[in-house]
Amino acid sequence: MGLALKKAGFTGKIVGAGRREEPLQKALELGVIDEYYLSIEQAVKKAELVLLAVPMGAMRATLEAIKDHLQAHAIVTDVGSSKVSFIRDVEQVFDDLTNVVPGHPIAGREKSGVAASLDNLFQGRRVILTPTETSSELATRLVTSVWEMTGAVVEIMTPEHHDQMLAATSHLPHILAYSIVNTLADKYQVDEIFRYGAGGFRDFTRIASGDPVMWRDICLANQGAILDILDAYQRNLCDIQKMIQNSDGEGLYKAFDNSKKVRDHGCESDS
Amino acid sequence: MGLALKKAGFTGKIVGAGRREEPLQKALELGVIDEYYLSIEQAVKKAELVLLAVPMGAMRATLEAIKDHLQAHAIVTDVGSSKVSFIRDVEQVFDDLTNVVPGHPIAGREKSGVAASLDNLFQGRRVILTPTETSSELATRLVTSVWEMTGAVVEIMTPEHHDQMLAATSHLPHILAYSIVNTLADKYQVDEIFRYGAGGFRDFTRIASGDPVMWRDICLANQGAILDILDAYQRNLCDIQKMIQNSDGEGLYKAFDNSKKVRDHGCESDS
Repeated sequence: MGLALKKAGFTGKIVGAGRREEPLQKALELGVIDEYYLSIEQAVKKAELVLLAVPMGAMRATLEAIKDHLQAHAIVTDVGSSKVSFIRDVEQVFDDLTNVVPGHPIAGREKSGVAASLDNLFQGRRVILTPTETSSELATRLVTSVWEMTGAVVEIMTPEHHDQMLAATSHLPHILAYSIVNTLADKYQVDEIFRYGAGGFRDFTRIASGDPVMWRDICLANQGAILDILDAYQRNLCDIQKMIQNSDGEGLYKAFDNSKKVRDHGCESDS
Repeated sequence: MGLALKKAGFTGKIVGAGRREEPLQKALELGVIDEYYLSIEQAVKKAELVLLAVPMGAMRATLEAIKDHLQAHAIVTDVGSSKVSFIRDVEQVFDDLTNVVPGHPIAGREKSGVAASLDNLFQGRRVILTPTETSSELATRLVTSVWEMTGAVVEIMTPEHHDQMLAATSHLPHILAYSIVNTLADKYQVDEIFRYGAGGFRDFTRIASGDPVMWRDICLANQGAILDILDAYQRNLCDIQKMIQNSDGEGLYKAFDNSKKVRDHGCESDS
């Protein structure tokens, strides 16, 4: 986000905070931030806008750390993949949510770390904001305009709807990709799997390279919505399994034809 | 394959056969073939090498159609994704398998039809040949050299091993992708699914655009190996489900960390 804002001509100061100096130093060198602190309390002191980008499981401790160091008008947002749990964390730590605007950019890479920064990561991508009942209109507008500077398209929805949609379109695929890699690695030689897995397999498992801490925390934070869609998925997969067992060609054709139509319709713009 | 051979300087005649004239006419215009017949009996009459590229379910009828029209020395190969079933079909139709060399190029696209032809589709990709016990050394060598002209790397293995590896690295991922698209389409608006599904989701579901007839036939042809790996997969997924239910962060971390390591190791050459 730092890179994207700078590319867009943002002239404010971008301050980084983290536990380890090395990545912060690298962020400075790469021009992602203008200065940094190892103390998050120090880092947020003069901030107009605080963007929290930590694994969901570290969110509450981070909120507690900054709570008494924020300016009264400072706006707080985040990039976490689960909004209900973020709001629960904020409610338990902050007395007032007027200046809190939960957010989630629907963009990312399976690579993490500051060296993987891209200045065009958000260009044309969606950023979902899920203001709480007490989030101010002004705070929401400010967060919206900052994201729009990066080239993103901002959408507002309820945290519950966000969590369901993300469980379906992001969390479930990641879980399935992790699971297939582990299943295959249990039975076969890794080299052989990837030797015979053509492009489709590499695409399909790319997301299994995601950061395991982040994904562990997402599974715990969005537990309910993930379990709902995982249950629906397993029932669907059992139906397919039965069709294969019963040599039910007609049923398999119908299922595959339907999903081809859905996918082709949904991705008409794909090359 | 026609395009790839021509690009490589192959000077023999490439004859196409099919049921409908339109795609054959298009193949002729695109330079994929040199001539065509709507009668497969006619098409194979003078052939030195016959490459069968039909859905697995149409294989037996196709073998029956050509059986009495082949030259005595004509070599027959195929590109089917299930080798045990192909060999079973051939054994039931042909009296002699000396000139039959089952094959499978591990390359392809989710797009089908002659307009999707690429002259570099096989460049650097693997082609697996699974000669039968009676396939001649000479026939295997000829099929190998033709594939090598397209830039492919040829490997020999048993049909059973091929079917297990392909069930794991190709058939299972396709079934999972089809299933996730159907599961989500049952619950949500298609437009919304693809709007919030970022790049990862599009990659993950790209293979759900595969031809439904081809994939139905693969599921029926490679039934046993697919059911084996699908069963292992479902057990692994149930373990993950339980970990999420039990908020077992340590278990989730271990599982995700393991698959990240496997994937990163297996795809070191990925960008």
